[in-house]
Amino acid sequence: MRKLKWGMIGGGEGSQIGPAHRLGALADGHFSFAAGALDHRPEAGREYAQRLGIAADRAYGDWREMLEGERRRDDRIDLVTVATPNATHFEITKAFLKAGFNVLCEKPMTMTVEEGEEIVRVAKTTGRICAVNYCYSAYPMVRQARAMVRAGEIGKVRLVVTNFSHGHHGDATDADNPRVRWRYDPAMAGVSGQFADCGIHALHMACFICDDQVESLSADFASTISSRELEDDAMVNFRMSGGTVGRLWTSSVAIGRQHGFDIQVFGETGGFRWASEQPNQLVYTPVGGRTEIIEKGEAGLHPDAQRLSRVAIAHPEGFPLAVANIYCDLADAIRGEVRDCLPGAADGVRSMAAVHTAVASARDGGAWLDARPSIFR
Amino acid sequence: MRKLKWGMIGGGEGSQIGPAHRLGALADGHFSFAAGALDHRPEAGREYAQRLGIAADRAYGDWREMLEGERRRDDRIDLVTVATPNATHFEITKAFLKAGFNVLCEKPMTMTVEEGEEIVRVAKTTGRICAVNYCYSAYPMVRQARAMVRAGEIGKVRLVVTNFSHGHHGDATDADNPRVRWRYDPAMAGVSGQFADCGIHALHMACFICDDQVESLSADFASTISSRELEDDAMVNFRMSGGTVGRLWTSSVAIGRQHGFDIQVFGETGGFRWASEQPNQLVYTPVGGRTEIIEKGEAGLHPDAQRLSRVAIAHPEGFPLAVANIYCDLADAIRGEVRDCLPGAADGVRSMAAVHTAVASARDGGAWLDARPSIFR
Amino acid sequence: MRKLKWGMIGGGEGSQIGPAHRLGALADGHFSFAAGALDHRPEAGREYAQRLGIAADRAYGDWREMLEGERRRDDRIDLVTVATPNATHFEITKAFLKAGFNVLCEKPMTMTVEEGEEIVRVAKTTGRICAVNYCYSAYPMVRQARAMVRAGEIGKVRLVVTNFSHGHHGDATDADNPRVRWRYDPAMAGVSGQFADCGIHALHMACFICDDQVESLSADFASTISSRELEDDAMVNFRMSGGTVGRLWTSSVAIGRQHGFDIQVFGETGGFRWASEQPNQLVYTPVGGRTEIIEKGEAGLHPDAQRLSRVAIAHPEGFPLAVANIYCDLADAIRGEVRDCLPGAADGVRSMAAVHTAVASARDGGAWLDARPSIFR
Amino acid sequence: MRKLKWGMIGGGEGSQIGPAHRLGALADGHFSFAAGALDHRPEAGREYAQRLGIAADRAYGDWREMLEGERRRDDRIDLVTVATPNATHFEITKAFLKAGFNVLCEKPMTMTVEEGEEIVRVAKTTGRICAVNYCYSAYPMVRQARAMVRAGEIGKVRLVVTNFSHGHHGDATDADNPRVRWRYDPAMAGVSGQFADCGIHALHMACFICDDQVESLSADFASTISSRELEDDAMVNFRMSGGTVGRLWTSSVAIGRQHGFDIQVFGETGGFRWASEQPNQLVYTPVGGRTEIIEKGEAGLHPDAQRLSRVAIAHPEGFPLAVANIYCDLADAIRGEVRDCLPGAADGVRSMAAVHTAVASARDGGAWLDARPSIFR
Repeated sequence: MRKLKWGMIGGGEGSQIGPAHRLGALADGHFSFAAGALDHRPEAGREYAQRLGIAADRAYGDWREMLEGERRRDDRIDLVTVATPNATHFEITKAFLKAGFNVLCEKPMTMTVEEGEEIVRVAKTTGRICAVNYCYSAYPMVRQARAMVRAGEIGKVRLVVTNFSHGHHGDATDADNPRVRWRYDPAMAGVSGQFADCGIHALHMACFICDDQVESLSADFASTISSRELEDDAMVNFRMSGGTVGRLWTSSVAIGRQHGFDIQVFGETGGFRWASEQPNQLVYTPVGGRTEIIEKGEAGLHPDAQRLSRVAIAHPEGFPLAVANIYCDLADAIRGEVRDCLPGAADGVRSMAAVHTAVASARDGGAWLDARPSIFR
Repeated sequence: MRKLKWGMIGGGEGSQIGPAHRLGALADGHFSFAAGALDHRPEAGREYAQRLGIAADRAYGDWREMLEGERRRDDRIDLVTVATPNATHFEITKAFLKAGFNVLCEKPMTMTVEEGEEIVRVAKTTGRICAVNYCYSAYPMVRQARAMVRAGEIGKVRLVVTNFSHGHHGDATDADNPRVRWRYDPAMAGVSGQFADCGIHALHMACFICDDQVESLSADFASTISSRELEDDAMVNFRMSGGTVGRLWTSSVAIGRQHGFDIQVFGETGGFRWASEQPNQLVYTPVGGRTEIIEKGEAGLHPDAQRLSRVAIAHPEGFPLAVANIYCDLADAIRGEVRDCLPGAADGVRSMAAVHTAVASARDGGAWLDARPSIFR
Repeated sequence: MRKLKWGMIGGGEGSQIGPAHRLGALADGHFSFAAGALDHRPEAGREYAQRLGIAADRAYGDWREMLEGERRRDDRIDLVTVATPNATHFEITKAFLKAGFNVLCEKPMTMTVEEGEEIVRVAKTTGRICAVNYCYSAYPMVRQARAMVRAGEIGKVRLVVTNFSHGHHGDATDADNPRVRWRYDPAMAGVSGQFADCGIHALHMACFICDDQVESLSADFASTISSRELEDDAMVNFRMSGGTVGRLWTSSVAIGRQHGFDIQVFGETGGFRWASEQPNQLVYTPVGGRTEIIEKGEAGLHPDAQRLSRVAIAHPEGFPLAVANIYCDLADAIRGEVRDCLPGAADGVRSMAAVHTAVASARDGGAWLDARPSIFR
Repeated sequence: MRKLKWGMIGGGEGSQIGPAHRLGALADGHFSFAAGALDHRPEAGREYAQRLGIAADRAYGDWREMLEGERRRDDRIDLVTVATPNATHFEITKAFLKAGFNVLCEKPMTMTVEEGEEIVRVAKTTGRICAVNYCYSAYPMVRQARAMVRAGEIGKVRLVVTNFSHGHHGDATDADNPRVRWRYDPAMAGVSGQFADCGIHALHMACFICDDQVESLSADFASTISSRELEDDAMVNFRMSGGTVGRLWTSSVAIGRQHGFDIQVFGETGGFRWASEQPNQLVYTPVGGRTEIIEKGEAGLHPDAQRLSRVAIAHPEGFPLAVANIYCDLADAIRGEVRDCLPGAADGVRSMAAVHTAVASARDGGAWLDARPSIFR
């Protein structure tokens, strides 16, 4: 099996996202790190790339140079990861797709729904893979939950309740900290703060596990720290195409919650609970029966959960390897094995539509609005 | 200290509520069980009361007979508990208050807001105690949370998130079971199903801990089992008078949740979490600090939490003794020691207003509506 | 059903044990509080008893007076609880048994094995009930565990692992506090400190659930605070008559543990875990299967667990009602319904034999010694 | 910073240990995979190594060939991992150390104490690093615990209680399964079964966190499945050089425990609890204070915990990255930065001495025996 070549845009020295993607891409030996434009400062990026073992002629100064350089090579990269500032995702992703590269884009894929729809079209036209890094969906026990829903093991899903809440922006005396402030400033963050930042992971997860899509929603946004223009707390009620009722809460002022991302799914014949802070267990209850703990690595899991378990039962695997699971899926997909659980451009544009619809609903007193991108109506 | 005399209406043989109130009233020795009209069948009620040790002349056939009988006595009861079917609470409570008795009424206090407002007026006029059995608020660690909020220990409360969800009505094949069905039938349950049944406890708890009141709300109701006319799942967003944002989810189809009643309160300088299935701990985090476990019975608790801890730290006390705590507060109040944490008629009417407002909002696409009873506007 | 008459010796004003027994005895309406010798100061005891509603002629000055007074009455008490200082249990219990009374004795039943054996003989001769208050065994889910073991649901028990550890005596600067110090002083506590105080509850629990008895043991004792003559930490390995391996750890210097009493039972076809700080769940795993949560109050529990559940599933019941369960069993037993799960004199003497054997083993470098009282060899 | 060259012996195709070490060595980019003798079948090993990207001339047929090949090169590997069957560890480790290579040996380092002592001497003579893969000690929060103990934050350690128990060998009907049976067969496993396999990790952890060594011990071994010659359950009491009391339980028949490896450490002024199934939290209680949750990634952790946190607070990191942490430490050590927390040959020989001593004690009725290797007496 040929080792695949991987390149990265962004993720320069000192960033958190760079090591996370390198670990994810390299952990299982599917990819070698072949090219990069790692920094907005060309020289710093070239130098850092070489220190990381990239050959001098593939240590690029910026993404355009990298696009040109790689396009000309016979041994061009098989996959490029886009981990640049949010507002640049659209342009870079589109350019690489059009040039025939497979792309893994950090979320958000774009800033507007229209851009998202264009990425969907471009990816379709070129036939390239356009994945979006909704990596929580790649935890083995999330895959197990999805597989059980698809196999009908909890019947038709009636209700999904999810939240992604933390309190790390709860200190008003720290609200001017630049690391925090930009998230609530429309000039930098766009139309939404906490919902676009964290809530959208929960919404994607709900759709992913239920194997369904949001059709309409009603939102309530609040800026509990009054100096914030964008919301730091949001509640979104929604309905899915199949009739499932959805409820999503997200907050960044929930002091004491470190990373409260959990999801509960309730169907006609059973229910689940999964939480990202204890990701190796799925708590399952059949209707009329006792609650059971399903463990990562136990015998009899669905293949898609089993193949992503690297170590024996009860040995925890965490967030960095969930990212690695996205890269495993990408490697498989590039090699021709379809991975329908890989989040893609359609997920990217649906998320963007949900964000914009939630903003509009919140401004309109919680009115119920159609949340589908026009291409999927 | 004189032992107080207690009487009960309802709670006949085979009921669950009868033993719960008897245990609550008698556990701590404040009351003796002196009178009762325990059954809608007069003879059965008289006979059962005597078997429970009540003297023959105070074992009544119905509540009117009891009202007349007790009114004439010098050693009349100090407190009567009303634990009859919901639709009768108003009439009985009003009659006993007017006759000068102290009353503990099971929830809901009334079926309409107007009735509730009348009870408030009658209680005020007569100067009698009218308590409503929101007994979850009497857990020691709930009292601790309220005391900490009132002492400013988490600053101004920004956000309260609560839910009361179970899955015991989640089996559609059991939906015609009479024990379940009536709750979703407007002819028997009134205007609301799950929200009025369970959600209202969570709403009361939010107000109780935050020491504030609901001003407006927006609701989303769903009947996830389609044969149900009333909702089996509801989400209510609200705002309190002091500006606190509130979020409340309640469900009876959350298969796998036995009794998921928990509440999270987030203020400017800290946050809490309390859950009814592990009621002896309060999980507290100061802003910028580590999460701490506050234990029932630890040194230094607020007096109102400390006085309700019967056994040493880490020896759990459960639901039946939360009911007993209500009776402890009542005994104190009857003896003249003010207990401002005792849920009363104002709580009863506010709850009823919240139920009717939520129904109206849900029917109107989640419109934000004023949720205050007119007497409190 | 006649109400039973109950009396108490000890448990005077300000004690913790008095309210706990009164709540336990009175909670379910089986007993009325008819007689008492509540204080070692005769006048204080008589006065307090009357304040608690006991008639003047049954408010006694000491236990001998009470024995004489009750013996002469036609309406003599049906049960007496002995809750006096440990060293007096033997004499009082023996005297009341010989006079034909049923007794509930606080643990330890006696201070020596020989005294314990005498109580067993006296109880046998008189045919009276002699119960010992190992009240943890009366939690509904402990009863469920025992019933499952007896029904063979986990096969032959191979291994039982239990501990009862707290850290409330872990502060060396508080070691001279009289409330703490006496427990480590042989003049007041006898031959053993922490093992006799807490560990013995765990050992009783192991025997109770496994329905078996300790045959031999090996102990390691430590005084981790060096000023203590008696142990504040102990490990006891044991073997039961049926071959089950046992391991018991107990400590009072385990800072951070509030009340870490838990037990794990492992058989040929399954295992259990139960913990006293979350007593309403029993965690069960069948061999080769998934871990399941068994809930107090769920459908299909063993009758002995079901009948002790007062409130609906997921409404916690705690320690005070475990004591009440002992009184329920006693009421049944007095009325002639055999309750083979009620801890009795045999449990009392076996516990005392285990304490003395553990002390001897610890002194002899962990030698394995026969732990059975001679009457049971 | 030069990339280091890494080689591996063992870990062939289909093994679990091969991917675990490759992920660990490669995750953070410190090493490149340069050489290997991966299989006991020379051709299979050479072929697999090349498929994993190793150059043909460094894809060796066996460890002796690899030793010769690497010794001759200027660009010889910086580190070799020995992950072959247990009985071969001694010979290979010794040979590579003598030839001047740094070694990471899987546990057990040797089969006898004498062999272990020889490794200590050889490592000392050659000045090479000899690490042993006690990888649980490399979890960030274990490092935090050790740092806090060393900084005196819980005072002198009085007591350490640890266990490593699972139930995966609890099915007697599966006892003949070759994957299970060899562990209880002295011909294959040596003198000890479960204690040498799992318990020794817990013993190392106790020493690691307490920064102390076992001086004497007393053991109780049991073969609860009678066909087993070696123990499947063991209890070991011990004393450390500084007087700390230790208690260690290990079992492979604890049905329902997936991987119950936890440790509690109690000192004069505080206590800890850490569990391998939830490794990102350290539960800490100061004497007289409340229990606090210390989170991986929180501000203010000890540098040795902080530098091993790859992703933000509350994003879990699991077992595979604990292995990676060992490789991070090795990379630092090879580059000259001393890592005194890296488990080494001294740990390997002490562990082996503990195993042999525990076996002797268990055979001698739990006699207390000196557990120190002679070179450390």
